[in-house]
Amino acid sequence: MKITAVIMAGGKGERFWPKSRSSYPKQFLSLTSDGETMIQKTIKRLLPIVDTEDIFIVTNENYVPLINEQLPDIPSENILAEPVARNTAPCIALAAAVISKKYNEDAVMMVLPSDHLIKYDELYTDTMRHAVKVAMKGENLVTVGITPTYPETGYGYIKFCSAADEDMAGVYKVDKFVEKPCRETAKEYLNSGRYLWNSGMFVWKVSSIMNNFKKFLPDMYEGYLRMRETALTGSFRETLAECFENFRSESIDFGIMEKAENIYTLSGSFGWDDVGSWLALEKINKTDECGNYVSGDVISIDTNRSIICGNKKLIAALGVEDIIIVDTDDAMLICSKEHTQQVKKVIETLKTCNRRDLI
Amino acid sequence: MKITAVIMAGGKGERFWPKSRSSYPKQFLSLTSDGETMIQKTIKRLLPIVDTEDIFIVTNENYVPLINEQLPDIPSENILAEPVARNTAPCIALAAAVISKKYNEDAVMMVLPSDHLIKYDELYTDTMRHAVKVAMKGENLVTVGITPTYPETGYGYIKFCSAADEDMAGVYKVDKFVEKPCRETAKEYLNSGRYLWNSGMFVWKVSSIMNNFKKFLPDMYEGYLRMRETALTGSFRETLAECFENFRSESIDFGIMEKAENIYTLSGSFGWDDVGSWLALEKINKTDECGNYVSGDVISIDTNRSIICGNKKLIAALGVEDIIIVDTDDAMLICSKEHTQQVKKVIETLKTCNRRDLI
Repeated sequence: MKITAVIMAGGKGERFWPKSRSSYPKQFLSLTSDGETMIQKTIKRLLPIVDTEDIFIVTNENYVPLINEQLPDIPSENILAEPVARNTAPCIALAAAVISKKYNEDAVMMVLPSDHLIKYDELYTDTMRHAVKVAMKGENLVTVGITPTYPETGYGYIKFCSAADEDMAGVYKVDKFVEKPCRETAKEYLNSGRYLWNSGMFVWKVSSIMNNFKKFLPDMYEGYLRMRETALTGSFRETLAECFENFRSESIDFGIMEKAENIYTLSGSFGWDDVGSWLALEKINKTDECGNYVSGDVISIDTNRSIICGNKKLIAALGVEDIIIVDTDDAMLICSKEHTQQVKKVIETLKTCNRRDLI
Repeated sequence: MKITAVIMAGGKGERFWPKSRSSYPKQFLSLTSDGETMIQKTIKRLLPIVDTEDIFIVTNENYVPLINEQLPDIPSENILAEPVARNTAPCIALAAAVISKKYNEDAVMMVLPSDHLIKYDELYTDTMRHAVKVAMKGENLVTVGITPTYPETGYGYIKFCSAADEDMAGVYKVDKFVEKPCRETAKEYLNSGRYLWNSGMFVWKVSSIMNNFKKFLPDMYEGYLRMRETALTGSFRETLAECFENFRSESIDFGIMEKAENIYTLSGSFGWDDVGSWLALEKINKTDECGNYVSGDVISIDTNRSIICGNKKLIAALGVEDIIIVDTDDAMLICSKEHTQQVKKVIETLKTCNRRDLI
């Protein structure tokens, strides 16, 4: 059976402004000291389990040049540009169409975000190999859960029930998906031992997921069939435009996962972080003895628990706490940690002021 | 009787880093929206009471080009460069030597800082005219006090006793000078009605102050006599170097004012501020409805009581409070309001790191 990977790389990543811009979102940034971008890391860690020519990247047309630049080994026909963003369900249908045309509906798809971070690559590939086996076993939809290490309120959770069966050790039937909890609930989830973080990584055969599209999203299934017909031909682009024009915006979680049967999960413990805001930098990088994460030319005095990303000039931080400072060539953010989820407000203000050059 | 002004412009102004540098201290900066520098404002407000050729500027040799540039009307022989900084007493002796040589010991000197701000120029000139009259009247040393408007803990205070006499309405004999008080004491001072802020502005005849030098700082008085001998001649520079080499560092406050008789004060109410730290910007400029003082290209969201000075790039402040942000071409300060008196720590760190280009 063919194993493929589908990398979802259409995200705008507004939460990393001013480093991320609409023309240069988070997946194309390097947020670690090794200089590799998020999407480069995503691809690199997959290579032990999937061939380069079987990695497909679904993205926005505007980002195709960036992908060519950062990932020159990915065949250009594997870069699938959506005419318009319609959330994850249409994105997956598009990739499924191309893969089933190129191979067949038995091919396994690992569907993966392009902008998450993983600390332990080997544990990751082990987990993914396991997930692929479960996916191959039948009409299973496998969602990769993450063993929670603290009561995070920024993630969705997966509640699992009993172990699947003897043949599938470490694999659990999913009871339900739950939204981002409040602090108290998150603590309960953590203590119960029955919940995993929802990583947004999925593994299934094309047939498994498309049968569920047929059942729960029949319009999109029609689109899938049409796209599959013209995939890898000259008229694909046109079909794509027509299909996406008609697709409504729909997430795979809401459209399929919360409704389907045969959902399994396995618990990954590979140091995963969704890098959802500037706060992630202090989780994924080393901090100094005052709890500061600092990069670039920075002097910090009486400064604690802060994230400071310098650019070309010296930044002197004096007596500040729990603050985020990010300098770039044309814009600088100074933000309290409590407001990291509101960086979008800056972008909205910039839109209002018609400062599109800075968005 | 000749009326002269002596502007003390040798200060380093480290508290305004990164805008102020050792090569460009506070008195040469513009901190208000009108674009005039502190020293330009100081000179301008004096013109109704003193002729340009009677304004003397005592400064550091390195700042002479800046003074020529910012104050082209001041005769170059009136710019008195100290070979080395020795605090205010030697600075005043030097100016006194030149003035008494050029005119005589009856000449009145208004001794003034170069980097303070005054809101109401007319009230200021009225007060200074009054002070000059008192100084002319005898061997009086006049210190200009400021009617306190709130319990400031960052200023020294002057305690005054009874009104001088009928001829000198509004003039008070000084009881004593007191150091920067704690909050509680400052409140008591304010409520008592017997205390004024010590502005560091003095008015006296050359003879009045030099007789006190003779009494309390006899070594410096000797230096004064030597400097006066060669003042306005070719060998002045050499004498100056010798005298300053021998002078110890001494403030006029400690060396003379706290010991002398005949100290008078009058209470100015002309909107004075010593602009002692970045905090002054919100006192001397208009703030927005959230209490922020903002200059340059700045977006502030959920941001309160902050001082933000942009430079060439956009600064977006999100969810921060009581913070000071100052951007310049090569360095940026982000500082809590509580730490404004510790900006020198940054300069010390820069010295330690041998980053002299940024000091």
